[in-house]
Amino acid sequence: MGSSVLYMSMSLDGFIAGPGDEPANPGGDGFMRLHDWFIGPDGEFGNVEGPARDVIEEMSNFGAIVAGRNTVEQVDHWGGERNGVQIFVPSHRPPAPSVAKYPKVTYVTDGIASAMAQAKEAAGDRRVMVHGAYTAQTALEAGVLDELQIHQIPVLFGNGRRLFDVLPERIELDILQVVDTPEATHIRYCVRR
Amino acid sequence: MGSSVLYMSMSLDGFIAGPGDEPANPGGDGFMRLHDWFIGPDGEFGNVEGPARDVIEEMSNFGAIVAGRNTVEQVDHWGGERNGVQIFVPSHRPPAPSVAKYPKVTYVTDGIASAMAQAKEAAGDRRVMVHGAYTAQTALEAGVLDELQIHQIPVLFGNGRRLFDVLPERIELDILQVVDTPEATHIRYCVRR
Repeated sequence: MGSSVLYMSMSLDGFIAGPGDEPANPGGDGFMRLHDWFIGPDGEFGNVEGPARDVIEEMSNFGAIVAGRNTVEQVDHWGGERNGVQIFVPSHRPPAPSVAKYPKVTYVTDGIASAMAQAKEAAGDRRVMVHGAYTAQTALEAGVLDELQIHQIPVLFGNGRRLFDVLPERIELDILQVVDTPEATHIRYCVRR
Repeated sequence: MGSSVLYMSMSLDGFIAGPGDEPANPGGDGFMRLHDWFIGPDGEFGNVEGPARDVIEEMSNFGAIVAGRNTVEQVDHWGGERNGVQIFVPSHRPPAPSVAKYPKVTYVTDGIASAMAQAKEAAGDRRVMVHGAYTAQTALEAGVLDELQIHQIPVLFGNGRRLFDVLPERIELDILQVVDTPEATHIRYCVRR
């Protein structure tokens, strides 16, 4: 089975969204600063050269997604799919009625471990892409997150929403890979069990 | 003049001290986990081989120290000096009477900018080592911190004291150097002005 990997762009001070993150202002003030590294010289998303290109290509090879409700609602479930794969959303509340038009989007009401098991099943031998701060924390706590790919951005955001708030216990990681570019330090960690 | 550089070991989730950081438990629970990278195979501090050795040697070449009161009181002002250089402590309160026995320790009561100016003067063309979370934040806010050398440790502490709490505005950084070792990712940043 493939591993579950959290992909997040984070400021040095730990923020993944700026201040004022709400539906009318998705990602908060200055959010796009965290994603500059992903934009090519032509302004196209993902069209970058150099070592960051390998990071993006690796990211793109996923077979299912587990994403938080906050994340998916802000982007309207990426229009129902991303790269053609299924999207699993752990949530205790049922989905909005409009989600019924997306057959590849599944709301999972019995917890993160169940959502991850279904996503791994759907992904086969490909990775499960995990997205969202709350989802990452619950996956870490439940022991179902295998790896973290952090795109660490050379900026101090000062305020906003943190990727890691408070966890119930210490979690050891192993560094798998560091990719050094001027725009971001891409560090991949494995969760030690 | 030399630059002012913050040197701090930080967990991936941004903590530089564990839970329960108080005088009877300096650095809090699990504090030493953040400094494992600094300990050689013989158990000696700083006696490491490989790329981390260069990081340590660069760190050791400082001409003055600016350190927070919390930091210096926990280590009794390093016995009055470190590497023979002067130590400047920004604090609004006068020092404890016992500090009078340390001629190289100066408490500066008129703010971080003054403390940094005095330290730069004392350091000559060598660097000023900056230490402490609160001191780092006030130096950043006052615009008198030039660089940050973060030893990012592959662990999620879960709780404790953060290096960066809340800053009044966004601060852009440039990545100067990344040193990739299994024990830590050493990232050096320049504060953009």
